[in-house]
Amino acid sequence: MIYVAVLGYGTVGSGVVEVIENNNAEVSLKAGEEMHVKYILDLRDFPGDPYEQLVTHDFDSILNDPEVSIVCEVMGGVGTAYQYTRACLEAGKSVCTSNKELVAKHGAELIEIARNHNCSYMFEASVGGGIPIIRPLNKALTPERIEKISAILNGTTNYILTKMEQEGADYEETLKQAQALGYAERNPEADVEGHDTCRKIAILSSLMVGKNVDSEKIYTEGITKITAADFALAKAADMTIKLVATSNYLENGTLLAYVSPMILAKEAPLASVNDVFNGVLITGNMLGDVMFYGRGAGKLPTASAVVSDVIDCARHVGRTSIVCIWDKEEMQLADLSETEKVFFLRAALSAKDEIVNAFPGGKLIELEGAEEFGYFTTCMKEKEFDAKAIVLGDKIHNRIRVA
Amino acid sequence: MIYVAVLGYGTVGSGVVEVIENNNAEVSLKAGEEMHVKYILDLRDFPGDPYEQLVTHDFDSILNDPEVSIVCEVMGGVGTAYQYTRACLEAGKSVCTSNKELVAKHGAELIEIARNHNCSYMFEASVGGGIPIIRPLNKALTPERIEKISAILNGTTNYILTKMEQEGADYEETLKQAQALGYAERNPEADVEGHDTCRKIAILSSLMVGKNVDSEKIYTEGITKITAADFALAKAADMTIKLVATSNYLENGTLLAYVSPMILAKEAPLASVNDVFNGVLITGNMLGDVMFYGRGAGKLPTASAVVSDVIDCARHVGRTSIVCIWDKEEMQLADLSETEKVFFLRAALSAKDEIVNAFPGGKLIELEGAEEFGYFTTCMKEKEFDAKAIVLGDKIHNRIRVA
Repeated sequence: MIYVAVLGYGTVGSGVVEVIENNNAEVSLKAGEEMHVKYILDLRDFPGDPYEQLVTHDFDSILNDPEVSIVCEVMGGVGTAYQYTRACLEAGKSVCTSNKELVAKHGAELIEIARNHNCSYMFEASVGGGIPIIRPLNKALTPERIEKISAILNGTTNYILTKMEQEGADYEETLKQAQALGYAERNPEADVEGHDTCRKIAILSSLMVGKNVDSEKIYTEGITKITAADFALAKAADMTIKLVATSNYLENGTLLAYVSPMILAKEAPLASVNDVFNGVLITGNMLGDVMFYGRGAGKLPTASAVVSDVIDCARHVGRTSIVCIWDKEEMQLADLSETEKVFFLRAALSAKDEIVNAFPGGKLIELEGAEEFGYFTTCMKEKEFDAKAIVLGDKIHNRIRVA
Repeated sequence: MIYVAVLGYGTVGSGVVEVIENNNAEVSLKAGEEMHVKYILDLRDFPGDPYEQLVTHDFDSILNDPEVSIVCEVMGGVGTAYQYTRACLEAGKSVCTSNKELVAKHGAELIEIARNHNCSYMFEASVGGGIPIIRPLNKALTPERIEKISAILNGTTNYILTKMEQEGADYEETLKQAQALGYAERNPEADVEGHDTCRKIAILSSLMVGKNVDSEKIYTEGITKITAADFALAKAADMTIKLVATSNYLENGTLLAYVSPMILAKEAPLASVNDVFNGVLITGNMLGDVMFYGRGAGKLPTASAVVSDVIDCARHVGRTSIVCIWDKEEMQLADLSETEKVFFLRAALSAKDEIVNAFPGGKLIELEGAEEFGYFTTCMKEKEFDAKAIVLGDKIHNRIRVA
């Protein structure tokens, strides 16, 4: 018998209990042994809950129970969650988590501790919710030199952008709708400012290069400046706008990683990832492009990913099931301002000559009756663009990077 | 040091050698030990080839070399390939293959032999080329009760259908183009009649249910009857036509598996899988939908998938790395004729009244100036549809199942 403890009985935590107990035949079959949840750690009580009797407030009772070999940390945060995770790993108990903040911050260290204690630190659910992405990257794309990852990693922002496109609505209005539907939190900052996406691409990037990619050094721009006018012009160019995380291995051995709204052609694989779905496009030097697509969030999909890790740990009791390479050594990131790309501008018609003169050779997008126009610059370094854009000041109403 | 033998130096075989030797840093790092190809078995000689000195015509020299722990069977066919695979497994050498015909026919048996000899029979490359699909199904979606798989599994037919849609061309003409470009074989039957797709869905279905799904019992219909007129009508209905393999776990415990052209809405995830790409959509009871997308064929993508299996075996020398469940017991398939769906008909305008009377309550699709019309029936059992269709005879020019 395999006994599991669940730390945190929130959305994901209750999903983990549900997946283990409701799909018990599948879970136990794949684990090779019958599996059950023995403890649920939470500060609260849950009178009337079917698993009420499993709830405990005492972490030590879990830590000191030799029957518990696998712990699911689905509390979130980087304080107590970090302490509990360390303690479990040091006691030889494997930890499976959906906590991307903790993985992005302490992944390399916790992996090392787990390896040293013949157990595992697993985080399939930390990126892409229920989409298998960490495991394929570590176990399936093993012969590949991964050259690039481009991904839509946040369901909330993707939902907002999809609705803005479909309904011609503005950002603030769509955010309110998303909040009313429960797709966005009351304090939406971590999502809409791109921080959540940034942590996830930091995790994928670290696994891609085998070294630690510091999420705090990744340039991150959110979606709050995107307007209905941007979408109208994108549509006229047969393009759409997505919040894209990019990680690109450059020839000089550095990694170009950034999170930014991108305008991309309708035929691009990521362009068809809509609503709350996530998509991860991986380019290998032998394989070419492969894409993983599915629900990037939600109680049961995320819980299912946590439990896939639990099953992996159950198959490896007494030894580590970690196969990834994620050293503590810091990966050197490329300077975004030195890289080249095309920019898409939105500006008032009255500034057209000035814009075209400043960025000669580009492509105009004009809409009948609109007071603004769109403009694709030629390919140029970010810092050259910025130098010109500063001179033009608020004559440029918005600028979006072109994928 | 890990030594590998490659059986068959055709397209995939030369790709396998290229991936192992050109990506040797990645491959050896992930394998945990330096890896090289020691033998290439082929009937031919390859004078001038960089790996000329590895070529042998003698299978026994491979079988009897204790240094060779992993063998790649990329010869194809179910005769010699079957004998060699058995011999290797019985000698405790793991076998990694792209040979879907052999996997579909003898998968359950070869897996059992491998397990009994503490080695592995691995076949990631047999379905979806370079797309990781077998491994995610076996190792990542473990907590799930997989309810349904819908997939585009053949690049040749998907290329033909995509071109027919984009260019309004007819089947025969597009097939010739595809043959000229090397996307279709001179004898295209295995692809265009759906047999290749059928073998692949038999493999995925067997892994999905854990029992053996006999590919010869799967209803299979190819794309040869699809015309430019079908695409014109599909377009008018905002739909497209794909060759789809479906495997659906029914509530009565049987499996409904079939391969057929399907007409599907443009927004359906599989509708955006174009050209030679493959897409596999898996529905789990906890996860909902997840899709895997990429190049379903081609030398290096397929070889990369074979080598991912080789690396997996290298990590498990002396024990099996097989985690799938695929028993020899036969899975009971549902009777397609008893299942319900909507049908799309194409017929001459002169037969409109007769068709509408025979299938009342459906939906007409009419094109200005066209001599034929399209018609969606209501949802009905296949056998009821067939009974009516027989009466109408060749007044129905084509019928396509609706996804």
